[in-house]
Amino acid sequence: MKTLDIAVIPGDGIGKEVVPEALRVLDAIEQVHGGLKFNYTHYPWSCEYYIETGKMMPDDGLEQLSSFDAIFLGAVGDPTLVPDHVSLGGLLLKIRRGFEQVINVRPAKMLKGLVSPLRDPKDFDIMIVRENSEGEYSSIGGRVHSGMDEVVVQNAVFTKKGVSRVMEYGFDIAGKRGGHLTSATKSNGIAHSMPFWDEVFKEMAENYPDIRTRSEHIDALSAFFVTKPETLDVVVASNLFGDILSDIGAAIMGSIGIAPAGNINLNGKFPSMFEPVHGSAPDIYGKGIANPIGQIWTAKMMLDHLGEMEMGAIVLAAIEETLESGIKTGDIGGSSNTAEVTDAIIASI
Amino acid sequence: MKTLDIAVIPGDGIGKEVVPEALRVLDAIEQVHGGLKFNYTHYPWSCEYYIETGKMMPDDGLEQLSSFDAIFLGAVGDPTLVPDHVSLGGLLLKIRRGFEQVINVRPAKMLKGLVSPLRDPKDFDIMIVRENSEGEYSSIGGRVHSGMDEVVVQNAVFTKKGVSRVMEYGFDIAGKRGGHLTSATKSNGIAHSMPFWDEVFKEMAENYPDIRTRSEHIDALSAFFVTKPETLDVVVASNLFGDILSDIGAAIMGSIGIAPAGNINLNGKFPSMFEPVHGSAPDIYGKGIANPIGQIWTAKMMLDHLGEMEMGAIVLAAIEETLESGIKTGDIGGSSNTAEVTDAIIASI
Ligand SMILES: CC(C)[C@H](C(=O)O)[C@@H](O)C(=O)O
Ligand SMILES: CC(C)[C@H](C(=O)O)[C@@H](O)C(=O)O
Repeated sequence: MKTLDIAVIPGDGIGKEVVPEALRVLDAIEQVHGGLKFNYTHYPWSCEYYIETGKMMPDDGLEQLSSFDAIFLGAVGDPTLVPDHVSLGGLLLKIRRGFEQVINVRPAKMLKGLVSPLRDPKDFDIMIVRENSEGEYSSIGGRVHSGMDEVVVQNAVFTKKGVSRVMEYGFDIAGKRGGHLTSATKSNGIAHSMPFWDEVFKEMAENYPDIRTRSEHIDALSAFFVTKPETLDVVVASNLFGDILSDIGAAIMGSIGIAPAGNINLNGKFPSMFEPVHGSAPDIYGKGIANPIGQIWTAKMMLDHLGEMEMGAIVLAAIEETLESGIKTGDIGGSSNTAEVTDAIIASI
Repeated sequence: MKTLDIAVIPGDGIGKEVVPEALRVLDAIEQVHGGLKFNYTHYPWSCEYYIETGKMMPDDGLEQLSSFDAIFLGAVGDPTLVPDHVSLGGLLLKIRRGFEQVINVRPAKMLKGLVSPLRDPKDFDIMIVRENSEGEYSSIGGRVHSGMDEVVVQNAVFTKKGVSRVMEYGFDIAGKRGGHLTSATKSNGIAHSMPFWDEVFKEMAENYPDIRTRSEHIDALSAFFVTKPETLDVVVASNLFGDILSDIGAAIMGSIGIAPAGNINLNGKFPSMFEPVHGSAPDIYGKGIANPIGQIWTAKMMLDHLGEMEMGAIVLAAIEETLESGIKTGDIGGSSNTAEVTDAIIASI
């Protein structure tokens, strides 16, 4: 029996609804597999937890999580309770940074049975590889003067090490997929970080002579996600650019409620963390109508990461079969509720 | 006779093809108007000019331009000749900054006769108001160490003055349109600049109690441009976020070859500058197939700015009539060439 220890953090809003659904799917996978057992430990860390304790997670939170095989996260943030930069900074971003989850991978591909908002989506299949530890998301900066004289400086920090490893990851995935790699830049407008980004990309490309490369400014590239997504394959991007592109990627798939993300630790010292791209959507929380597919596809990504690729493929096939049968939540044009969609996926498994 | 002095800078690539076309349209407008005369002065500043002289424009370039009523720009940049950050920094960005063109306005709206890549674009009509002088586009920053230890710091600088004036401009436009205002933020991930941006937005909103406001993170907002653009009206954004959103806006209209932009000087000390959103597209330059509509719509924006709103409306109507008649370039599904499209627009005027 292969036992996997999973830390489960449902978080806020619909995270609390869709995480249990995804766990039901994983239960079904245990049945199918026969030799696989998930051991869940639940953590209530969230904005409500903050209201009670003044913290998004306990001081030894990272320590508590450190020996799990993976972390399964719902969604973090509820600005009606806690400002976003406090809630995200105190939980999601803290784990990403503390556990050196330096890469964030997010697929954007047409699933069978989903209707894209694009007129002619042409079966795109993109993998976004996002830098997840530095760049524009830096806590360095501050303010001077006040009133109309106030000036705020925000620093973005790019290191050769950080940029190299995300690009290397991108080249490796492109190699495995037999595909090509596009780098998201903005060196025509941003004077220091982006010319450096381009330099490292060019340098690294020389080590991968068989992989076709392309470099596009983030403005044009964002437009290409809409006008010709089928021309893209693997896309490597900075923290901010990857964030933006992965939401556009989710949008062209048909709903932000669909897409999964993996926060990958490369050095094996800490667990990786899996979470859907969507947020906590407090406005629809509690109605039982949230789309569980983002969280369930996230479970598939976690399975792949834990070496259970065959099980991952079964989950994805069940998602597609369910979508094709028309059992969908309202955000993607159906009329089923959260539990009905999960039930159908489990039945298909 | 009202005489307007216009500095014309065709720039690079297709800029050299579409600028003369737009001037033909302005000639037609002179005929229709009767009492209006444009005085053009042409400047060859471009990447080719850089190859010859080592500069994108002469040292006294800004001085030469300073007394015009407006600047009419084609497109700048040709990375096969000059690195983008050199060409853009030496011409486009230099004029934007030197002439305190602190606001960039870019419409994204469905034109009659255009096919959006969106399945159901629902007649969206968005005005993007972009901060154009500071923020993420700063020349402050630098490098330390080398090899695998290299670290690059890029500073973004936001001032209360800069943020306030772009937001005020946004509120004013929203007021004039009887619309609402959305602020593009990323305060859940970027720790200093974006919480400040939100603060100023909230503070300023109190002065405009009649204008409905909304604040969206740039990742989600980029997705909304694809999934529900009809829910947006005026959008106010930082320099980088406005850059990205306006390209997505151009994409959902049907082509990046369509959208115009105005770089607005607010204090009346220097001319404003008008340019299409599209780039110089060196790959299609010289074939006579570039879409002239971006440049011609840019001429309409310039007319509006110079107080000739009635003439501007005539140009836009002629563009729409031409599109509806099916006379289009290849990028928007037609088979006409650059000159044929312009001819049809002129005939319609
Ligand atoms: C060319 C580049 C510097 C410029 C910008 O980012 O401002 C362009 O993309 C634009 O939008 O006008
Ligand atoms: C919530 C926010 C901090 C986060 C990010 O920008 O990384 C989210 O948008 C994401 O993409 O996971």
